[in-house]
Amino acid sequence: MSAVLSFDPRTGEQASTGPSTSTPADVEDACRRAVAASAELAALPRDRRAAFLDACADALDAHRDAIVPIADSETALGVPRLEGELRRTTYQLRLFADAVREGGFLEATIDHAGDTPMGPRPDLRRMLVPIGPVAVFGSSNFPLAFSVPGGDTASALAAGCAVVVKAHSAHPRTAAACLDAFQRACAATGVSADTVQLVFGRDAGVTLVAHHSIRAVGFTGSLTGGKALLDVIAGRDEPIPFYGELSGLNPFVVTPGAAAEQGERIADELFLSFTNGAGQFCTKPGLAFVPVGREGDSLVARLRASVEADATHHLLTEGISRAYAEGREQLGSAAGVEELAHGSESDEGFSATTSIVGLAARDLTDAVAQECFGPVTVVARYDDLDDLVRALTVPPSSLTTTIRGTEAEREFVARVVEVMHDRTGRFVFEGVPTGVAVSWAQHHGGPWPSTNSLHTSVGVTSVRRWLRPLAWQSAPASLLPEELRDGPMAIPRRIDGVLVASAG
Amino acid sequence: MSAVLSFDPRTGEQASTGPSTSTPADVEDACRRAVAASAELAALPRDRRAAFLDACADALDAHRDAIVPIADSETALGVPRLEGELRRTTYQLRLFADAVREGGFLEATIDHAGDTPMGPRPDLRRMLVPIGPVAVFGSSNFPLAFSVPGGDTASALAAGCAVVVKAHSAHPRTAAACLDAFQRACAATGVSADTVQLVFGRDAGVTLVAHHSIRAVGFTGSLTGGKALLDVIAGRDEPIPFYGELSGLNPFVVTPGAAAEQGERIADELFLSFTNGAGQFCTKPGLAFVPVGREGDSLVARLRASVEADATHHLLTEGISRAYAEGREQLGSAAGVEELAHGSESDEGFSATTSIVGLAARDLTDAVAQECFGPVTVVARYDDLDDLVRALTVPPSSLTTTIRGTEAEREFVARVVEVMHDRTGRFVFEGVPTGVAVSWAQHHGGPWPSTNSLHTSVGVTSVRRWLRPLAWQSAPASLLPEELRDGPMAIPRRIDGVLVASAG
Repeated sequence: MSAVLSFDPRTGEQASTGPSTSTPADVEDACRRAVAASAELAALPRDRRAAFLDACADALDAHRDAIVPIADSETALGVPRLEGELRRTTYQLRLFADAVREGGFLEATIDHAGDTPMGPRPDLRRMLVPIGPVAVFGSSNFPLAFSVPGGDTASALAAGCAVVVKAHSAHPRTAAACLDAFQRACAATGVSADTVQLVFGRDAGVTLVAHHSIRAVGFTGSLTGGKALLDVIAGRDEPIPFYGELSGLNPFVVTPGAAAEQGERIADELFLSFTNGAGQFCTKPGLAFVPVGREGDSLVARLRASVEADATHHLLTEGISRAYAEGREQLGSAAGVEELAHGSESDEGFSATTSIVGLAARDLTDAVAQECFGPVTVVARYDDLDDLVRALTVPPSSLTTTIRGTEAEREFVARVVEVMHDRTGRFVFEGVPTGVAVSWAQHHGGPWPSTNSLHTSVGVTSVRRWLRPLAWQSAPASLLPEELRDGPMAIPRRIDGVLVASAG
Repeated sequence: MSAVLSFDPRTGEQASTGPSTSTPADVEDACRRAVAASAELAALPRDRRAAFLDACADALDAHRDAIVPIADSETALGVPRLEGELRRTTYQLRLFADAVREGGFLEATIDHAGDTPMGPRPDLRRMLVPIGPVAVFGSSNFPLAFSVPGGDTASALAAGCAVVVKAHSAHPRTAAACLDAFQRACAATGVSADTVQLVFGRDAGVTLVAHHSIRAVGFTGSLTGGKALLDVIAGRDEPIPFYGELSGLNPFVVTPGAAAEQGERIADELFLSFTNGAGQFCTKPGLAFVPVGREGDSLVARLRASVEADATHHLLTEGISRAYAEGREQLGSAAGVEELAHGSESDEGFSATTSIVGLAARDLTDAVAQECFGPVTVVARYDDLDDLVRALTVPPSSLTTTIRGTEAEREFVARVVEVMHDRTGRFVFEGVPTGVAVSWAQHHGGPWPSTNSLHTSVGVTSVRRWLRPLAWQSAPASLLPEELRDGPMAIPRRIDGVLVASAG
């Protein structure tokens, strides 16, 4: 057993000793406790489960002054960004509490006994039930919103599943501080303290995913990390679902009309989007398509000026910093690619120099169309729609596709939508792809390699990942879950084929 | 290229030459065509897609006199059963057509732009879209309802995905006859003839699952076969979802009260359920728990009498026949197991002798708690509730759990429900588990090894398997799918968090 080290990215120094790594016995113990806690949480009436989610949000809010400085010291993301991230995190927990009260996520369905062309049909009732303990792998880049108290944890708790989080090594003390908030929420609402648990260390993560009690895995991280965990799952006796949010190049298309009419604004938005959080967003636009010619040139000139004036960023870890330097070098040495501009350089801590590189869209290759975590983007200049469409088929599928066009270019934009329809999870027509709103309609996912699932990891419908259907045939009312009994019920249900919004 | 042989199970003779096995080039060609056909089907307005499903049902009905005799000659399941199966199949297609018109399966969700604690939220709209070409592996035991025109095909077409079916070797000519009906439906409704295609041969099935154009696989069959295809998927560059309906022991519990009050009726229903279709149902009750004592004895005596009077059955293939004989032998030689009765014996064709074996519930082991495809069931006699509960934890999870109890035994039954909650996909409280009704509330699935998915393969919600979410942020109305535009819409939608049943 050794300590998990905690570093300050601004200096590269070890700032303090973090929690201890978890032993195999620790993981075994956590899984055993999670089984009991999961059963308890699943048995809790929905209003109490919702109250627990609200209490988690309240506890995180109450611990803001403890959590944010620790997170800042471990991530260098800055206090304003981290306060915003905590607001997002608690909003998310409260939105899930609302969704649990509303009950539509249960997909409660009742078919009364009846006659069909197949003969008599028995009474059948169905709803979704929690699958059991879930392992969550938090990401490095969102120490709050996609880590211990993040979307995977919130949605799993909403579904009624206990969670064992493998803390990300980039922010172990932040993870421990968030766990503390959860445990206060458990105590305040009479929920088992084992409902959210934490393990530390890479080996513990592997042991966790391999453990027979774990029923699903939520993961936000690299494609390489995701594939490694998929291999662990392949070695299990029982396969379990793995929901990996893995990578994103996030093409950003500027039409000729948009370059002409809003070139400066788009350049500024794009600059902020690819440098925000030191470019460490899964939805960072890593590949911008800009038309050749005067208006495109103006847009790029504006972008260069912003990049050249940009201060040095600090990346989350030494590993990310090293990978970024290598990624920039690979981009710069690819055929047809030239560096257009870079920001100020520094050697202090896990530093990163902002950069844009350029090439002709027709020269775009797999080697260039790769995600590079950090403040860099590739500007591909295209001649016309045909040139653009050809280039758009080069990159792998992505979480998002942004298309900045004008009213008058409806056909141009529609053609890009058509080409990207099967290659993306979300289309963005105004603004930028970063800043993934938490809402009912949000979708954060997409075709491989952006994710490996047909689900979202952000928004209310992310709850579906932790649920399975269960049916009751000809059941006495007393053995049915409350939500499936006859009579009025203040949740949406489908009764004899007809969706009844509430009080069915 | 060789011919797929077609056998008559009643004689074991090769009845005629079937279609040719598909070459790798055939599979490549089918996949290429499926990509184009899938895009066309996805682009079809919902009412036209629904009309196509109805036309498929009509064409199958119109070909009844051609299909049923071929299916009977290849399966020995008998004309009445096969006519019923075709009725089920066409009912299913028409129910899916209704569901496509109703539109709830799209999960259309609209969040208008607004303010949140996180700041302003853009306009976000989301619905489910088809994932693309689907490979379907039909099962041997339902040549119609779970094969070429079965639930996987019907639900994939309803989702808007073209289908390439790997025909089961147990009924190649039936598969070809069903494809003919589909092609007539395509011609009648102006839908591409490549919307449903057929490939033959085991190698063709492997090539199909490995093909980059295939976006998901539906499989009904053995655990061994399912695992083999999972290995093929693990070797792909891009993982794809595999929906395997794999195995089922389907425990059938008779309480002391039910044995006393309805013992004879339950014995008769159980007998029919485990011998129906020669016991080749995935929901066959393969393990019955009967109380010790006089009432249990009476039930078992009645069961023995039925078994002893039963004629020889014919199984679907020589392989299933051989596996059944081996399975019976293994059961019979297991510790503590004795044969209670068997039916008439015959060597003709792929014959199978009906059988029941018995043991004390406390002697139940993994070796006995195994699915054995064919007309056999295990009767485990239990002393009391504790003895029963212990024994119920021995078998693997199942598609169904049947509990035949009485009003007065509410606590006994509730305890069994509690134990089996995480081990089953459907509870049955009256009747038998065989005969899986097609409806909105049906669930045919369950924890591993019954399936490997959190979805159902029967009923309307099976459509969800072939869909993925797609979101549109700040999209102009003209670029949105019709179902996501503002204004009244005759489908259920969730608008600003509120589910609106229709005409929102």
